[in-house]
Amino acid sequence: MIEKVKENPIIKPDDVKPSMDGYQISGAFNPGATVYGDEILLLLRVSESVLQKEGYVRVPIYKFEGGTSHPDILEIKKDDPALILKDTRGVYYKGKDYLSTMSHIRLARSKDGINFRVDEHPFIYPTELWEEYGVEDARATKIDDRFYINYTAVSRNSWATALCETADFKNINKLGIIFHPENKDVAIFPEKVHGKYVALHRPNNSGFGKASIWYAESPDLLHWGKYECIVNPRDTMWESQKIGGGAPPIKTDEGWLIIYHGKGDNSVYSLFTLLLDLEKPNKVIKRGKNPIITPTEPYETEGFFGNVVFSNGVVEKDGKVYIYYGAADETSCVAITDVDTLLNSFD
Amino acid sequence: MIEKVKENPIIKPDDVKPSMDGYQISGAFNPGATVYGDEILLLLRVSESVLQKEGYVRVPIYKFEGGTSHPDILEIKKDDPALILKDTRGVYYKGKDYLSTMSHIRLARSKDGINFRVDEHPFIYPTELWEEYGVEDARATKIDDRFYINYTAVSRNSWATALCETADFKNINKLGIIFHPENKDVAIFPEKVHGKYVALHRPNNSGFGKASIWYAESPDLLHWGKYECIVNPRDTMWESQKIGGGAPPIKTDEGWLIIYHGKGDNSVYSLFTLLLDLEKPNKVIKRGKNPIITPTEPYETEGFFGNVVFSNGVVEKDGKVYIYYGAADETSCVAITDVDTLLNSFD
Repeated sequence: MIEKVKENPIIKPDDVKPSMDGYQISGAFNPGATVYGDEILLLLRVSESVLQKEGYVRVPIYKFEGGTSHPDILEIKKDDPALILKDTRGVYYKGKDYLSTMSHIRLARSKDGINFRVDEHPFIYPTELWEEYGVEDARATKIDDRFYINYTAVSRNSWATALCETADFKNINKLGIIFHPENKDVAIFPEKVHGKYVALHRPNNSGFGKASIWYAESPDLLHWGKYECIVNPRDTMWESQKIGGGAPPIKTDEGWLIIYHGKGDNSVYSLFTLLLDLEKPNKVIKRGKNPIITPTEPYETEGFFGNVVFSNGVVEKDGKVYIYYGAADETSCVAITDVDTLLNSFD
Repeated sequence: MIEKVKENPIIKPDDVKPSMDGYQISGAFNPGATVYGDEILLLLRVSESVLQKEGYVRVPIYKFEGGTSHPDILEIKKDDPALILKDTRGVYYKGKDYLSTMSHIRLARSKDGINFRVDEHPFIYPTELWEEYGVEDARATKIDDRFYINYTAVSRNSWATALCETADFKNINKLGIIFHPENKDVAIFPEKVHGKYVALHRPNNSGFGKASIWYAESPDLLHWGKYECIVNPRDTMWESQKIGGGAPPIKTDEGWLIIYHGKGDNSVYSLFTLLLDLEKPNKVIKRGKNPIITPTEPYETEGFFGNVVFSNGVVEKDGKVYIYYGAADETSCVAITDVDTLLNSFD
């Protein structure tokens, strides 16, 4: 069985301290996850907006000054002729776009995988111009003694996937963009296969076809190639719009176990299982017919963006599998199960 | 001076033999170019459609059978309920998209750079499923004794940039997709810089900002990274929509000389000069204020897609620079100049 715990949502916006005075938390969702020491760490996507003021439009920005960066507020008079209101997601001002919400990555820590303490300060946040509009949807992969964390880097030049590394979850070494725009949902495998690093990714598809799960290889985690489209959306109510990879895979005797997401009719997001060949991870062995998690609870069906469950963090610890997932683009939840249950989901 | 030769267009659709009976040539344009032996070779993008028949919709396809591939015609009754007519670019039939025109790469050869003989048969054409809908816009880079040719590979899973290599323009070794969807306008530099291969590319941008010229590095031509956006469109009538790299650069004493294209107001395409630092090719040294080639002649302003000039092949030979370009997505043209003239275009 796959149990959505009764404590869900395990992290809510109110549990997170804003980055600065005047900011407010709109979401603490889509957590990456990993085991560090005797704890489970979540890498929360924290999205923030700015408290508004009569007669003004205020948006969150990062200021880059003297080699450092810090969050700030851009305040524009509503009657400024240079201000162009776009949709609810942002404004255009003096030749530049600004988002009305901006994300960073915040750590949360737990011994039992259910009760978390959220750090006071951001962990990964914009320090470079190529991520000036925010850092979203982190995924952590432990390879040897290092943790590689990929994330969506947003800038005036679109969105792409960037990589950073850490050994201690204190010091971060940013390694730049590894999948050019427009690409998200990158999941790096926890070990090399035949001498190459391996990842799943999800290029945008504005042409024919629908956004699908792709494969890639790398000699060094920084340069990627051998691109191949390996899983397309199916023509079902659950996957009619697009699909994308989820968390880094779990290695099992039967293959690489992946939990991926599908966007279906009425923009409902669900989670599915997929099994890839251990030796040839670009080959699909099995694919679950039905979703393993769909939005059913009020905290999943209602919220900032209702009817969304989205996982980018799955952890195996003490015989259990913790599937962390964002609900309604607002909170973080967990469903607990084990590898056998997931491997039986293909029947 | 930059002289559009009086022989333009130097190659027209009528100069090209269709791939099979029932096909017709709609364009022979956007040529890649290189010097091979004592000849200039063009790598023409040849686009073909199918002669129509009363009561049917007929589209060009490639059939993949027993390890080989060949062009064929898919004929669908107009009243077949599974047929969905899309815009003029294609149809949707039984769960798959089909294009109404399909491209391959054809060689043309010349001693003087103006008068060309077009080969009878395709040179690069779909042999793999990831290029099943055609092969477009080739660019050739000679590195040591091999020619590396990148091209847009189109498939049911969108469009991407693939690479192949040849030493003799007879045998081709296909190396797969090197820039995942959606990416075009890849120009590989003719030598390594500080031990790394270097390329410009143009990721699609459906988000904020406009499609721009990006930089990338590779250890082996197959795996790419170090992605960086280096040139954005300017807010002028010539570049208001988007820009993209053109042919592989010419090395000069002053820097890497690039001819790039801009799409401006009313979807007019023009060509511009750009100079990148020899040692740090991600740094712009100079950028021409005005286009060096715009659509002015009837063969540029009228045709399959009027008001388009687009270059992906520039050759330096015997002190002259031959700028080959597609006109109106229909024919191939050349403008002749020299390096000094291009370097003076920045003043």
